[in-house]
Amino acid sequence: MGPQRIALLIEYDGAAYAGSQLQTNAATIQGCLEDAIRQTTATASRVALAGRTDAGVHAAGQVAAFLTESALDPSVLQRALNARLPRDIVVREARGVGLDFDPRRAALGRHYRYRIDNRPTRPALGRDRAWHVAEPLDVETMAAAAARLVGSHDFAAFAAPAEDGGARTQREVHCFTARKRGPHVICDVSANAFLRHQVRRMVGALVEVGRGQLTAAQYGDLLDGPPASAGPSAPPQGLCLVSVRYAAPLFAAGLDSKAGVC
Amino acid sequence: MGPQRIALLIEYDGAAYAGSQLQTNAATIQGCLEDAIRQTTATASRVALAGRTDAGVHAAGQVAAFLTESALDPSVLQRALNARLPRDIVVREARGVGLDFDPRRAALGRHYRYRIDNRPTRPALGRDRAWHVAEPLDVETMAAAAARLVGSHDFAAFAAPAEDGGARTQREVHCFTARKRGPHVICDVSANAFLRHQVRRMVGALVEVGRGQLTAAQYGDLLDGPPASAGPSAPPQGLCLVSVRYAAPLFAAGLDSKAGVC
Repeated sequence: MGPQRIALLIEYDGAAYAGSQLQTNAATIQGCLEDAIRQTTATASRVALAGRTDAGVHAAGQVAAFLTESALDPSVLQRALNARLPRDIVVREARGVGLDFDPRRAALGRHYRYRIDNRPTRPALGRDRAWHVAEPLDVETMAAAAARLVGSHDFAAFAAPAEDGGARTQREVHCFTARKRGPHVICDVSANAFLRHQVRRMVGALVEVGRGQLTAAQYGDLLDGPPASAGPSAPPQGLCLVSVRYAAPLFAAGLDSKAGVC
Repeated sequence: MGPQRIALLIEYDGAAYAGSQLQTNAATIQGCLEDAIRQTTATASRVALAGRTDAGVHAAGQVAAFLTESALDPSVLQRALNARLPRDIVVREARGVGLDFDPRRAALGRHYRYRIDNRPTRPALGRDRAWHVAEPLDVETMAAAAARLVGSHDFAAFAAPAEDGGARTQREVHCFTARKRGPHVICDVSANAFLRHQVRRMVGALVEVGRGQLTAAQYGDLLDGPPASAGPSAPPQGLCLVSVRYAAPLFAAGLDSKAGVC
């Protein structure tokens, strides 16, 4: 029997990690996954992730894939990995995929959720899962402004300063909403793909709208600004990668509970 | 100017604490509050709490009160306390009350929420805020069973084993519900007061109903059992003291967002 490629549906609390991508001297999601796989299969595997998440950013439905010579059934692998992973990372589902499956290239869309705690005092509960904005936000105007970014646009203005100047910065935002849920403001955004820091800058500037510092029209006009000009960037702890969409659904778990824990 | 008595609306994440009540050699909510008050007012104050919460139990709307010679305005005290409290405890509101106000005796009702994460795999996000029960629960039957405990009953069967045998164990449960919310099962229970461990035992046995181990009728019959016979006790991390009710509402914050962060 030859090697098999396994896709994983991953949930993690990013508070303790330096981000999703492997780093030599810091704890990362990829590093923890590769450690758990090596302990389980007794050989090293390189893990590919669908979306890159920054330090402190969470995921309810990140997708990972790796190649292994192990003949273990995916469900057995899942249990073995969960026994070895730290308690802030869990494999929600595992399944065999084609040997050439690349979770990043195959992805057709990503859904992120950003949570703002809009109470007058700092939060104790959920403090690592939301951005605290004490000033009452005008959520209706935020929602109107968010709608202006829906569609295919050049999002260079919302990119991180370090974004490669030569890279394509056109992205298609399928949906961008803001709504109140109890004391929180929930921003949902999905797109074919995102530039680095794009969601955090979109939300950072959207909060300026909520504060009355920008109109909805001015928010839309930020698209016309020079690279990395739209900001400020919202802090990482409010952000969660909810789900990654493929041509055919990869996992059963993602279908009915995709935003359940965010 | 004589002393003033201050009531505080408190939110805390109980994960790092040995409970609400002062202990000599462990971090407690009362201990942290008394430390912050002493640092703020330069004199020691004894803090009284409306409800006793166990180690690992959270609160969105605990009520505390203390007497102080300080002439600081309650809102100034609030900001000063929040600057000194650890980030998992926060004063949401402070106000002056009558010198004889006792937050426990004056309380007419308490509302607790218990959260069960009912997904097949252990949670990474929210793992310290819910009890993980992997087996799918029959929430409809749980709701029917819960309704049987509503009313004025002797809850001795749901008390902690250490509960004083001579104490009154009659309590009036005003409301007890179970419902699905995404991947969670949310149990809300309010009563005039609760015996120690009562909510956790009510939920522990309710999960037995959800698993099909007890019928709704058998659940109701647990009331007739000997003291501390109804169990098992659900773990602490799923439990949150949502609010405490007084004859006249004490705080503005508790009114519109009482279950917002649980």
